[in-house]
Amino acid sequence: MRRVYLDYNATAPLLPEALEAAVPYYASVWGNASSIHHQGREARVAVEDAREQVAQLIGADNPFDIVFTSGGTEAVNLAIRGYAYGNRARGQHIITTRAEHPAALDTCRALQQCGFDLTYLPVDGLGRVDPEVLAKSIRSQTILLTLIHGNHEVGTLQPLATLVEVAHAQGVPVHVDAVQAVGRVPIDVAALGIDLLSLCGHKFGGPKGVGALYIRRSIGATMQAVVHGGHQERERRAGTEDVPSIVALGKACALMGQRLADEGNRLEVLRDRLESEAFSRIPEVRSLGKSDDRLPNTTNISFAGVKGEALVFNLDLLGIAVSTGASCSSRQGVPSQVLEAMGVPRQVSEGSVRFSLGWGTTDDNIERVLNVLPSMVERLRMLSPLP
Amino acid sequence: MRRVYLDYNATAPLLPEALEAAVPYYASVWGNASSIHHQGREARVAVEDAREQVAQLIGADNPFDIVFTSGGTEAVNLAIRGYAYGNRARGQHIITTRAEHPAALDTCRALQQCGFDLTYLPVDGLGRVDPEVLAKSIRSQTILLTLIHGNHEVGTLQPLATLVEVAHAQGVPVHVDAVQAVGRVPIDVAALGIDLLSLCGHKFGGPKGVGALYIRRSIGATMQAVVHGGHQERERRAGTEDVPSIVALGKACALMGQRLADEGNRLEVLRDRLESEAFSRIPEVRSLGKSDDRLPNTTNISFAGVKGEALVFNLDLLGIAVSTGASCSSRQGVPSQVLEAMGVPRQVSEGSVRFSLGWGTTDDNIERVLNVLPSMVERLRMLSPLP
Repeated sequence: MRRVYLDYNATAPLLPEALEAAVPYYASVWGNASSIHHQGREARVAVEDAREQVAQLIGADNPFDIVFTSGGTEAVNLAIRGYAYGNRARGQHIITTRAEHPAALDTCRALQQCGFDLTYLPVDGLGRVDPEVLAKSIRSQTILLTLIHGNHEVGTLQPLATLVEVAHAQGVPVHVDAVQAVGRVPIDVAALGIDLLSLCGHKFGGPKGVGALYIRRSIGATMQAVVHGGHQERERRAGTEDVPSIVALGKACALMGQRLADEGNRLEVLRDRLESEAFSRIPEVRSLGKSDDRLPNTTNISFAGVKGEALVFNLDLLGIAVSTGASCSSRQGVPSQVLEAMGVPRQVSEGSVRFSLGWGTTDDNIERVLNVLPSMVERLRMLSPLP
Repeated sequence: MRRVYLDYNATAPLLPEALEAAVPYYASVWGNASSIHHQGREARVAVEDAREQVAQLIGADNPFDIVFTSGGTEAVNLAIRGYAYGNRARGQHIITTRAEHPAALDTCRALQQCGFDLTYLPVDGLGRVDPEVLAKSIRSQTILLTLIHGNHEVGTLQPLATLVEVAHAQGVPVHVDAVQAVGRVPIDVAALGIDLLSLCGHKFGGPKGVGALYIRRSIGATMQAVVHGGHQERERRAGTEDVPSIVALGKACALMGQRLADEGNRLEVLRDRLESEAFSRIPEVRSLGKSDDRLPNTTNISFAGVKGEALVFNLDLLGIAVSTGASCSSRQGVPSQVLEAMGVPRQVSEGSVRFSLGWGTTDDNIERVLNVLPSMVERLRMLSPLP
């Protein structure tokens, strides 16, 4: 069966060029990048080259502001907890939103258990934060704003420039969870004034098991490490550098940087076709979080009278992979907090399916989905006990 | 130049079979192991197979007691911090030794800053803990003993069975940092009664960027996560599973499990030859931590009147990679805390070099080292300003 994979927000296949770049660092240049001998120095050069590639993709002017982590989740943990503990003496209030990824939400909850005070900002029907609401939520004790850009479930892009401006006007630095946005839409930390930015590669063609955190120089000294041990990553992240994965992440960043505009346009066309034809061929469908300000690869569609999970299972039987929402939670069957925060009624969110596209997605893939989806929805609606 | 690599305690080349096992999970089975569709389930099967392979190598009777982490350092962090915070209500005293790896030492120091009370046990001239000293150090508030087995600098193996017995007699669970020991010497967590055991693959032929923590079922419920987010690893470690690296780690565990006895004997013969011939051909050398109870692949030799770093650099110029000690610290030039704890005089430890062997080491490699070492030491001694 020729399979169709439309779950890039869960993970993407590794770009062949990224794998090719990594293999020598498995097979022949295997040194520990902290060793001072030849093999160590070879590995060190590779790590630093990758650091430059990551820095360039996000507009960081100094590669040393990039810290490699074991993935997006650890980057988000390091950003929020590392900054919170390092700046606890200045205040214990942190602002986030109700539409975050579990990596941020769970870290914030853990901070609450340790005495921090958290504000969870409401979001509008598209998942966006209102700058005026943000402005009013800032207190003298506020030390950090952390928010997701490129929502994992609906793709919503925040009005980042405005939100950063509002936060900075009151002296509050901003962490952006850009795990789904980096490599898909342009982001320039320097231009936007972002202070901390989390990213990972495996959503856009890099390997799993590696991510990075951008830390603006001016706040770097106040960060605390989350993983303790050796002196790696300038004391900010202990543990032997995962050289092959770091090299592959760097390569993926370099490639997607070159392709960003073209690939964004290409995926947007495919995504829009999927959306519009699903709308015209299937009655009673609704797009959640649909706006011009969202990731070009993501659409979240709710089908009235159908369970999203039933659609996921039935599409899977035909070789089409999609998701009901965050893969992290997909085995738990809990309702989507993101959609709830957006004010989507439970019945609508339960009928929703996320389609997320990426570098391997073709027009033929979309065609395949459109060929089976209308009849499948019709059949499931007939079987469904829902009104 | 045909290079000789004798720095396996820093990192080892990936076993070709482990790379081969991982590649399909980069190139064709790229799913997110938490996704419920076909690609996710394929990845999940691979992760669970690897979990069984890891469990089998260390004698864990249930694979679910294995938690995958981003490496040995994170495993040690999770063991110590996760257990400490999860059991804080019972007591805040933790016992460790003066000869730990920075991953444990730094984690312990971070706990001290958060109000925990730490005892750093002395070690003898070989780096071993005295069971009677341990027994006396245990208090009613003691919640954990954490110690390294298979010291990274000298290879010392602790009298684990006795130490675990002493700790358990007073109700104290034991974490073993076995990052250098697993895959090199047999370890059976069930037989020894070990409660927590950290391991990583890249010291014995697995990939970097992945490790594992064994958590005995009976204490599992009290552990706190260190990386927060999704529900992966049964809520004990958030973040998308690094499937290819996990698969490669599993494969390396399976292979080294089969080869453990033969490979241990083979390396011991090579190591002993290096040691004895260095001793017979070079005057005024001293072996640090030499005993029958040490890793078969490690020797730490001190050359009077020579700086260890000078030897590392000069051997490197001839294509031979060795180390002065922990690679994590090798760029810092700080004296070895392990050797200091063993009572080795500064002058002796400064003249020491660690040779660590592994699966790629051949008799020819040892020959090459023995061919150049005596004259190099002689030359450096003549140049040296040391008495």
